[in-house]
Amino acid sequence: MNIGIVGLGLIGGSLGLDLRSLGHKILGFSRREQTCQMAIERGVVDDASCTPHILAAAEVVFICTPIAAIAPTTQSVVPYLSRDAIVTDAGSVKKAVVEAVAPLWHNFVGGHPMAGKAESGLEVAERHLFVGKPYVLTPVDTTPVDAVKTVEEIVRSLGANVFECRPEDHDRAVAWISHLPVIVSGGLIAACMSEGDRTALELAQQLASSGFRDTSRVGGGNPELGVMMAKYNREALLRSLHQYRLCLDEFISQIKAENWDSLEQQLTRNQQARPKFIKE
Amino acid sequence: MNIGIVGLGLIGGSLGLDLRSLGHKILGFSRREQTCQMAIERGVVDDASCTPHILAAAEVVFICTPIAAIAPTTQSVVPYLSRDAIVTDAGSVKKAVVEAVAPLWHNFVGGHPMAGKAESGLEVAERHLFVGKPYVLTPVDTTPVDAVKTVEEIVRSLGANVFECRPEDHDRAVAWISHLPVIVSGGLIAACMSEGDRTALELAQQLASSGFRDTSRVGGGNPELGVMMAKYNREALLRSLHQYRLCLDEFISQIKAENWDSLEQQLTRNQQARPKFIKE
Repeated sequence: MNIGIVGLGLIGGSLGLDLRSLGHKILGFSRREQTCQMAIERGVVDDASCTPHILAAAEVVFICTPIAAIAPTTQSVVPYLSRDAIVTDAGSVKKAVVEAVAPLWHNFVGGHPMAGKAESGLEVAERHLFVGKPYVLTPVDTTPVDAVKTVEEIVRSLGANVFECRPEDHDRAVAWISHLPVIVSGGLIAACMSEGDRTALELAQQLASSGFRDTSRVGGGNPELGVMMAKYNREALLRSLHQYRLCLDEFISQIKAENWDSLEQQLTRNQQARPKFIKE
Repeated sequence: MNIGIVGLGLIGGSLGLDLRSLGHKILGFSRREQTCQMAIERGVVDDASCTPHILAAAEVVFICTPIAAIAPTTQSVVPYLSRDAIVTDAGSVKKAVVEAVAPLWHNFVGGHPMAGKAESGLEVAERHLFVGKPYVLTPVDTTPVDAVKTVEEIVRSLGANVFECRPEDHDRAVAWISHLPVIVSGGLIAACMSEGDRTALELAQQLASSGFRDTSRVGGGNPELGVMMAKYNREALLRSLHQYRLCLDEFISQIKAENWDSLEQQLTRNQQARPKFIKE
């Protein structure tokens, strides 16, 4: 199959490496000539170009740009696609993306490969990045069934675990497990830094160990990514934040009132609930 | 030196293993005969007993019981100690402990070895548990200087990094980096479980990965320990929770108002501040 990849970063590059090794012909499109050259040299693509004509032969096109660029990029490349080409994306939010992109191309399937690394860029692209990772597809009423089937087969061949759901359900789920944690964790760092007692702050910095390290990890991550997720998944994130605040207030009330039985019951429910999310 | 250890769990047992290998004579005291037997068999102590008379020969005594038992246990053993014996404890909060224990014995030095494991009990005691870990000593105005010096020398011989501060400073610092994270992280689990949309909740449970795992880890831990830290460090924890809530509300306001510049500035400050706590 001829597969086009638009945006040759970590995700686009890793898709290219895997799909090429599965026997597909990979056609890369990037704005930067240097990236096209590197993609060819690293064997990520069979051919790459800075002009979208290269996508004319593609049967399936993966749009792997940052979220904000997905809709404008799709708009700029669709005039060059063959009539039956299927377009899919790799954005980490789906409602806003699907609403913007579906009207631009009849054969569009929203997608979210949930594989990432701390670093980004083609330099860190690698084979088998998607193995055992969730890959969510979010077809809507107007999405052609055959297009979903084709994308699903490709994704399955990467070794990913395919999930299919509505864009809204995806966004609510990732608000809970991916976007809310960034704010919760970021609040922890911000609160610590607000400590006005210099002795206590310096001591805290010296004594911090694994508990603080783990709880603060995602809150200390890439600021641009944090803003993107808040911007494009604002509604679901605010919904989760509202619930989080209620839970936090409940904890504060229990501690203020010295209601230790209630606190222990809640902490016990948490202990029991966590394994439903995490299999360690 | 003759060193007494009261409470033969993870901390008491690990202290015994290390101090014994350094040439000290270790005298164990536990309420349970079975624990005394096991401590002797495992080489944690030279001798152990269920009666406090065994502590009469001790020059330094480590009280390694759970927090709630530190003061009553100290009260019950001091009548058996030699007049010059130094008592120190291993409780994870210090103001409440020092206020309760200092009046019971003139030669008392508050201490907190910040080494732990997910499991507890003598079965998981191990050598070198304290190497490279912080060990905080919290003398007060009435604490004899020589007692602090002696405890500090012993602690240093374990390979721990010794810190010395007031009990209140210790409690504020651990509220930030140890106790606040438990509530922040617990709130995340509680909020997720409050999701009324079954599809989104089940999807969230299936899609959760490293970000959720790390942010929720300490919130899904031992409920009794969580209650203990809230109970005995209530004042400092409420102070930290108050600040945390302000920071959370600021994030919520920024997202509601779509004030992306402010959000990015805050996330950037977080990214810059985290390495001051964590050297990864």
